[in-house]
Amino acid sequence: MPTPLAYNAFVMNTASHIQHGQWRHPEARQGDFNDVELWIGLAKTLEEGLFDAMFFADVVGVYGPSGGGYEVFAKEGLQIPSNDPSVLISALAVNTKHLGFAFTSNVQQEHPFNFARKVSTLDHISRGRVAWNIVTGLQENGARNFGTDGLVDHDKRYDWAEEYVDVAYKLWEGSWDEGALLKDKENGVFSDASRIHKINHVGEYYRVEGPHLPSPSPQRTPVLYQAGASPRGRQFAAEHAEAVFLRAPSPKIAREGIEDTRRRAIQAGRRAEDIKFFQGFAFIIGRTAEEALAKAEEFDAYASADGYLAHANIGTRPDGSVYPPETPLSELETNSSIGLLDWIRRGITDREPTVADISDSLLRNGRIVGTPAQIADQLEIWQDEGGIDGINVMNWRLPDSYTEFNELLLPELQRRGLAKTEYVQGSLRTKMFGADRLNERHPATRYRGAFAEAVVEA
Amino acid sequence: MPTPLAYNAFVMNTASHIQHGQWRHPEARQGDFNDVELWIGLAKTLEEGLFDAMFFADVVGVYGPSGGGYEVFAKEGLQIPSNDPSVLISALAVNTKHLGFAFTSNVQQEHPFNFARKVSTLDHISRGRVAWNIVTGLQENGARNFGTDGLVDHDKRYDWAEEYVDVAYKLWEGSWDEGALLKDKENGVFSDASRIHKINHVGEYYRVEGPHLPSPSPQRTPVLYQAGASPRGRQFAAEHAEAVFLRAPSPKIAREGIEDTRRRAIQAGRRAEDIKFFQGFAFIIGRTAEEALAKAEEFDAYASADGYLAHANIGTRPDGSVYPPETPLSELETNSSIGLLDWIRRGITDREPTVADISDSLLRNGRIVGTPAQIADQLEIWQDEGGIDGINVMNWRLPDSYTEFNELLLPELQRRGLAKTEYVQGSLRTKMFGADRLNERHPATRYRGAFAEAVVEA
Repeated sequence: MPTPLAYNAFVMNTASHIQHGQWRHPEARQGDFNDVELWIGLAKTLEEGLFDAMFFADVVGVYGPSGGGYEVFAKEGLQIPSNDPSVLISALAVNTKHLGFAFTSNVQQEHPFNFARKVSTLDHISRGRVAWNIVTGLQENGARNFGTDGLVDHDKRYDWAEEYVDVAYKLWEGSWDEGALLKDKENGVFSDASRIHKINHVGEYYRVEGPHLPSPSPQRTPVLYQAGASPRGRQFAAEHAEAVFLRAPSPKIAREGIEDTRRRAIQAGRRAEDIKFFQGFAFIIGRTAEEALAKAEEFDAYASADGYLAHANIGTRPDGSVYPPETPLSELETNSSIGLLDWIRRGITDREPTVADISDSLLRNGRIVGTPAQIADQLEIWQDEGGIDGINVMNWRLPDSYTEFNELLLPELQRRGLAKTEYVQGSLRTKMFGADRLNERHPATRYRGAFAEAVVEA
Repeated sequence: MPTPLAYNAFVMNTASHIQHGQWRHPEARQGDFNDVELWIGLAKTLEEGLFDAMFFADVVGVYGPSGGGYEVFAKEGLQIPSNDPSVLISALAVNTKHLGFAFTSNVQQEHPFNFARKVSTLDHISRGRVAWNIVTGLQENGARNFGTDGLVDHDKRYDWAEEYVDVAYKLWEGSWDEGALLKDKENGVFSDASRIHKINHVGEYYRVEGPHLPSPSPQRTPVLYQAGASPRGRQFAAEHAEAVFLRAPSPKIAREGIEDTRRRAIQAGRRAEDIKFFQGFAFIIGRTAEEALAKAEEFDAYASADGYLAHANIGTRPDGSVYPPETPLSELETNSSIGLLDWIRRGITDREPTVADISDSLLRNGRIVGTPAQIADQLEIWQDEGGIDGINVMNWRLPDSYTEFNELLLPELQRRGLAKTEYVQGSLRTKMFGADRLNERHPATRYRGAFAEAVVEA
């Protein structure tokens, strides 16, 4: 029997996250994302399906070129409007027992002192089921919502992220010693100040005195997700991440990325098994192959080429409008060395690739169509040849994509040992790695006990 | 019959908020504030008692002088440890239907773009039951957690707050026109970009491009709370607040403050009834006067003088330690012109007032001891002579103080018409002022339609 894969539901607090146009289907409910009941129902469905976590993507601006309009994004519901995922989590946590909640937050949007406190609070509320997807920001408009002229240089953003996580690690791991919280009613000692420390962080981006305000939460540091694909991003993931999100085009490419990241992790003093890799898939499941293909046709019919193009950034003109589908790739005004374009050019050699090939490629990215047995066959290949540890299950429709997963695919996956049949008890990190807290190889743990003298000076 | 008063429960996501030492009582559960079940139970209790809102105080640092220690604060559980109230609200909102949720957030702790999005999300989740208590920060350590050397000058903090609320108002009121959200499945138009606007804010503290990411929530701008007592703070409240929190020492002083604030509001183009005033009280309720006095003795027995002194700032030395109770006020090393000290000196003329008089005065601040009838008599006086609109009910113990309120005091208040007997349907602002949205006299509403041309330039 294979090792069971882990399963996350990849969602966003918006109408059109990845599979654009699908919100228009009569059964689709993702357009009702303002309604908390949609999310509570979905969280319960995911827990019934033994999903490990609900993974919230997020952005803090509209896509598109600097200074461009956002007509297509508004029309498509493409990540605008969108809501803050972090304040939704407690409503879902109190309606579930095991499901983890990963949410995305970029280093520009919130000061690390406030962010670290928020995460600790959520970890208390959920009893240790919170994960953070660390991102550096990828939208010009997002940067300009926070006072900068635009995105700072890519590698510089990672330097910023390094300091950001450093501040958070100090607060989560170093500010409160174990045993500082006493709640001793008889002696009137709520906590022991000699075991609570200022962090006195002084860096290039932040000065933070501390102490951390919350007492240690079940996991202290949340489970850390990252999705960096660039060399600098991959290095960051190797050093910091416990889970990495991939959208590799083949098992072979997945394996190369996984092995490279693991090699870097080992060089940084960690072990290969300290990081789990999740490949993104969008399943189209039929009881028969014919039914699956008919469903795929229906999804194609609702797909919005404009949405995929706009989401890709490269599919829009400098004013924010979308290129007509017949536009040859050679006419795109982009100086971006996007891997996708190279990928399309390598795949289409008998004619000039066009903008329509971009949207088509994105629509098909990560899609697996078939019966439960056919899909499970594919996942076995991805596990064996790609070396993936888990899957980020993307959706076409909320909540249908996940109720179908539970009803049709999960039994087959369980039968083959590709999916667990019950939850492990305990925190999200316990479910993933067997312990509530980060292991001692993670860089955050160097701050345990590191500030023990600060209180003497205070 | 009098007009019913409004009732808020004044709480904090911490062990010892205002009534220090009480967490040590065997029945007290506030020490379990990390447990979300405590809060869910309390929210349900408050809704059973027809409370209008649960009002969360908050701070983002430890009290005490600059560079001082925090031994007494840790020992007392005095606002450290503490958790972020904002991420708790959705868990409470989905377990209630009518109760409002006011939370405190200061202008330094979170960027207004992120904050405005968070509030809009909470207003969607709660279906219009969110209020924001605007504060400028009052702790040196809090300021140093966010990169400044300490608190900026008091009046300067209000200038900063003016720009902060300005950015938030632009996002809440001006960025999305009514009707921009279409969710039109047939025509494939989720929202209409021509009715969604960038705000292009450029000020002294912030540059924010926009547009706001959430679609308009039920209230758009949350109900606005403020508690400024200084002239500058009172002016800010007069211009911006819809609800003001008082802790006046007498009905006469309450009335003076209310009339002054209302006069300023009228000068700013608003009406007297646009602001509601909530006086803070801590009830000790007995079925008989003897029982009430016995309870008061029990609270006194658990009260921590050190806690009250430390909380007052003036009660601690520059190193953060608490003065001995017999210390004469004249020996305090404080250059702060705290009204409390003047108040004590005016009340004690036959001897030298001491530090013990500070803690005693704070312990008795806002306390009303008696039978339901005796307490209701007092509230009638405060309503008639003080002119208050509502009460912030402080607590001694969670959840007992509120279950006792419901069981013992509420029936008497309802009998006299001092408390409502059922909820008004609708949002928090509808319950308080009869409409979901701010009225046109509020300064935020000048941004309605103000950015309509921005999209043409985009």
